[in-house]
Order: sequence, then structure tokens, then C-alpha cells
Amino acid sequence: MIQTPYLLFLGDAPDGLAAKVAQGIRDWRPENCVGQYRMEGCNADLGLPEMDLVQAREAGAKTLVIGVANRGGVISQAWKKVLVTALEEGFDLASGLHNLLRDEPDLAAVAEATGRALHDVRVPEVDYPIANGEKRRGKRVLPVGTDCSVGKMYTGLALDQAMRKQGMKSTFRPTGQTGILITGDGVPLDAVVADFMAGAVEWLTPDNDPDHWDIIEGQGSLYHVSFSGVTLALIHGGQPDALILCHEPTRKHMRGLPGYGLPSLEALRDMALPLAQVANPDCQVVGVSINTQHMGAAEAEAYCAEVEGRLGLPTVDPFRHGAGRLAEALAAL
Amino acid sequence: MIQTPYLLFLGDAPDGLAAKVAQGIRDWRPENCVGQYRMEGCNADLGLPEMDLVQAREAGAKTLVIGVANRGGVISQAWKKVLVTALEEGFDLASGLHNLLRDEPDLAAVAEATGRALHDVRVPEVDYPIANGEKRRGKRVLPVGTDCSVGKMYTGLALDQAMRKQGMKSTFRPTGQTGILITGDGVPLDAVVADFMAGAVEWLTPDNDPDHWDIIEGQGSLYHVSFSGVTLALIHGGQPDALILCHEPTRKHMRGLPGYGLPSLEALRDMALPLAQVANPDCQVVGVSINTQHMGAAEAEAYCAEVEGRLGLPTVDPFRHGAGRLAEALAAL
Repeated sequence: MIQTPYLLFLGDAPDGLAAKVAQGIRDWRPENCVGQYRMEGCNADLGLPEMDLVQAREAGAKTLVIGVANRGGVISQAWKKVLVTALEEGFDLASGLHNLLRDEPDLAAVAEATGRALHDVRVPEVDYPIANGEKRRGKRVLPVGTDCSVGKMYTGLALDQAMRKQGMKSTFRPTGQTGILITGDGVPLDAVVADFMAGAVEWLTPDNDPDHWDIIEGQGSLYHVSFSGVTLALIHGGQPDALILCHEPTRKHMRGLPGYGLPSLEALRDMALPLAQVANPDCQVVGVSINTQHMGAAEAEAYCAEVEGRLGLPTVDPFRHGAGRLAEALAAL
Repeated sequence: MIQTPYLLFLGDAPDGLAAKVAQGIRDWRPENCVGQYRMEGCNADLGLPEMDLVQAREAGAKTLVIGVANRGGVISQAWKKVLVTALEEGFDLASGLHNLLRDEPDLAAVAEATGRALHDVRVPEVDYPIANGEKRRGKRVLPVGTDCSVGKMYTGLALDQAMRKQGMKSTFRPTGQTGILITGDGVPLDAVVADFMAGAVEWLTPDNDPDHWDIIEGQGSLYHVSFSGVTLALIHGGQPDALILCHEPTRKHMRGLPGYGLPSLEALRDMALPLAQVANPDCQVVGVSINTQHMGAAEAEAYCAEVEGRLGLPTVDPFRHGAGRLAEALAAL
């Protein structure tokens, strides 16, 4: 569990895209962000108050979160100076980078000496159990995609927002590093050992109030041969009551797999639902989320309307339309 | 890769069942076994020549394989004496036990000093790649089960034997610790990190002769919510040309999951085949393997005949009938 609120470290991000992790935290959990820390040459700007470490401490920040993708896979010496000082000033550090904070001897030494925590959110820190398949109280919804990276996390976060707005009880349950940094907690599922994947998802989504919804962050796709096992562990460990189908209509082939075409939404529905019903016989497909970022407004509207007619399910782009109709579909279950 | 041939260590096995790993090696790779080593109180007997360490070395044994399940999860002091002496006599050690050889300081120290290898086959020793889904040359068959522990490994090993007998080219590809000890090589799939499961299976079953068959050891079941993700990684990483359905008809519920009934063979077929065709559109279900160990001979015959009529597929218990008909079905593909 990462201590909030955060000071968001943007480093020397060459552009806004390089700081997309920080942008995600800023967009979805603004209450977790007291300010931003930018170094010379930083071209990203989240519109948060600019703070140095002392100011951020005074404003209550507990963790410095590396919200920027680094270049070349190394933590630069320029960053190091800030990170070491942050530890000395009493901040924990959190990072989703491939190169781990804990593997940097200077950071590890200062963290040890100051008693501060280094959170590498790509690395599981819990001994997860083997899944027992027992029915849990409360409700769960899982977005499943025709492919990887079609907007499952965005759909889940937008749904969480819409459900709260409608007065529903919901918790977003991250299963990847960006989601974990956004909420401060979760399971880095792709780094969990095979036998414990489904158990980790059960652990993440425990018994809850009967009217509470866990929104489980999806991963991979049943149709993506590199990562489909992770997806099925989410379906069986999460025992969802509801699935939301996610799709990006302009994708020419499966991400990273040039020889593999995308399945239709119908094929995804017919594959995912029987698998989900193994763990939860009452599971239903309740809606469709379309990522229309590569379409014009009119084209996007027409596409969603066409899918809605074809599948008979509420179909939205949560970015363009909000996720209110998906939340209503869950409320109606 | 574990050096063969082996001396099989039966320790103080209280009965034959406790030595079932050794029995598996003896049954399926007798050419890998020069003899057995039994301690006082051992009630297991594989019918192999009794040897001490010196005799076994002279007979050419390279590795002492712990073929017995230990009690209480610890490597006893009585065993230790033999294991340390074996390292000093020039043997490598191999084990599938939960408590690792490498975690025993005395064994680790002697192995280091003598330059011998400690093979803990539950632990992956390769950095597996992420699966790329590319079509590989050669053919692959995968047994898939209605449940865990219904005889998938046995089916694969019997099929390997039958295929060789029929002059076909085949290799059994282990994905669990017993299989790895039997052949000396493989992937401990349940211990692989989620993102690399399918890649590990691709690594295990590389390009081969067009008429060569890899027989991939199955794990878990698409219907077993604790381990289904591992099963799907096998299906997608293995890109099998053929599936064999495996079933144990007397099972009352899924293994370890009292609330879960077993699926029908038809349901398994209809779930597994479309998933397999994502990775290999030409995949077919070619046969059924029934584990009839809890049935009388007449009942077993009748059951297999009934399934064969119902599914229209060659149906055998490889233990009672051999796997010849399954091999023929593969040859006919």
C-alpha cells in the first residue's frame, strides 16, 4: 500500500506522452496529488502546483511517484539527485519502471538508512494463495478485450467514476503498474507466478457489501496468445457477475502479433461468457466499450450505434460519452 | 538439462506410493535408470539392481534423483548423509521436492566445493521469452482435461511410447516436475511468471521436422478455476495441431473445489477447440483418453465404447488398452 497523497515527479519528460503515468494519476485521483516536480528541460505539465520537495512535504505529500517513462531503461544521475534528496526529506518513492528502485545501490542504502519505503509496483510483495473458487459476497465487473491495450483500464476507471456519481458503491481494483500507482494498491498480475494468478485476483477482490462493486482492471485478451493465460486467471479468480466487452475498431492485427487478426465482438462474447460462467453461472455481458480515438465524432457515433443494434447492449466510448450507461446497466442487474 | 543415467534414491519410503516419482522414471525411461538406492526401512522396490553410490558410479550413473516424497516437507538428516556423500562421489542431485536442495546450506556448500549441480526441477532456470505466436514447423499434440490429475501426463507418455513403436517421430515435452525428472528436461510451468508462460511453452516446443510430433504435457484444466490460466497458456503457447480429451468418470467434483462439478467431454471439446484454433486454425480434437482406474474391466470397456459412439472419436484408457489408437489418429491427420 503506497502512502498518499503524492508529489508527482515528471523529471525531464520530453513531452506529455512520456508523463502519461502521472497524467493518469492526475486525471483519475486528483485528490491524491498535491503537486508536480519538474526538472530542467521538462516539457510535460499536468497543471498542478509546482513544488520543490520542502514545499510538497509541508503540503502533506508522503510519496514521490515517478510518473514519467525514462529513456533507455536507466534511472539517470540527474533523477538520482532528486530521488536521494526526497528519501532524506522523508518521502517514500514509488515507481513502475522496469529497472527497479531497489536495484539501485545508492537508493537502497539511503532508503535503509532513513527508514523510507521503495515501492516497485511491478514486483509482487504478497505471497498470494492458490485460488479456492469459493463464492464471495459483493459484486464484480471485469472488462475483457478483443486485444491488449484497447482501453480496458480506462473503461474501468471511467466506470468507477460514473458509478460513484450515481451513488453506487464501487472500488477500482488495479492489476497493472499504472493502475496500482493511480490508486496506491493492487496486484501486478503479469509478474505473479502462474500457480498463484487466480488466487491473487481472489485476494484483490475479497468479500464485500452485497451492493458493492469491485471493478477489476482487465489484462491481455483471450485472443492474444502471448497473454491469454493471464486473462483467464482474471476471469476465473475474479468470478465476475458482469463482463464489459472492449474493442478498438481500427486495429489491423493483434498487438505485437502481425499474423493474428482481431476477433469480432460477438466471438469475444461467445468465448468469454461460457468461461466466466464456470466460476459464476450468473455472469452476464452487460455492455460494450469502444475506443474511438482514431475515429471522427460522426464515425464514432455511427460505429457505437451500429454495435449497439447488433449486440443489443449499451455501447459507449467512455472517453467521448462517459461510462454512465454502463453504470446503469450494472445497477439494473 | 539433468545428466542421465540416474541412480534412483528411494530413501526410507514407507510404501510404493511414496516412491511414485521413481516409479514413473522406471516405467517410462528404464534406459535412464542404472539402479535403486534404498535406506533402512524402505518399503518401496522398483525391481532395479540395488546399488550403493560407488557401484552406481561404476555403472555409469551421473545423477542421484530423489524419487520419493518426503514426510513433513523437510529433507531428513538421514537422507542428508547420503546426499552429501553422493555429491562427494561425483553425482549431481535432482529433486522435485517443495523444499529445495539449494536452500539446504550443507548441500549447497558441498555442491559448490565439488562443482556438482543441484537440480530443483520446480524452479525455472531459463529466462523464457514472451510468446510471439509465430507458426513453428513440426506437429504438436496436447492432452486437455475435464479436471486436474485425470491422467494427462500418463496419456502423453503412453502416446510417446505408442508413436515410437509405430515408427513415428515424437518427443514428450514435460511441463511439471515429475515429467521433467522422467526425461531430464522441460519447463516447470506452474512456477513460471505469468507474462512468460506461453513463451516458455513456445521455447519448449521449437521448430522441428515436418513429420515430428511434440507431445506436450498438459496442466490443470480450462474448467479448474485455480489453474485454468496455465492451461490456456499451454494451448496458446503450444499451438497444438491436435487435442486429446482426458477424463476420469468417477470424480464427484473438481479436484480441491467441492462446489464445482466436472464438465462433460462435449463441453470440454467445445470450449478447448475454439481457443486452440486462435493459435492454430487447423487444430482438431483427435481422441479421448479415459482414466478407468476406479472401474472394473467390463465397466471400463462399456464406458469407453459409449464415449466413442457419442463423440465419434477413438476412446481408450491408455493404461488398459495402450495408446496405439490415439497414435494412429495422429498419424492419420
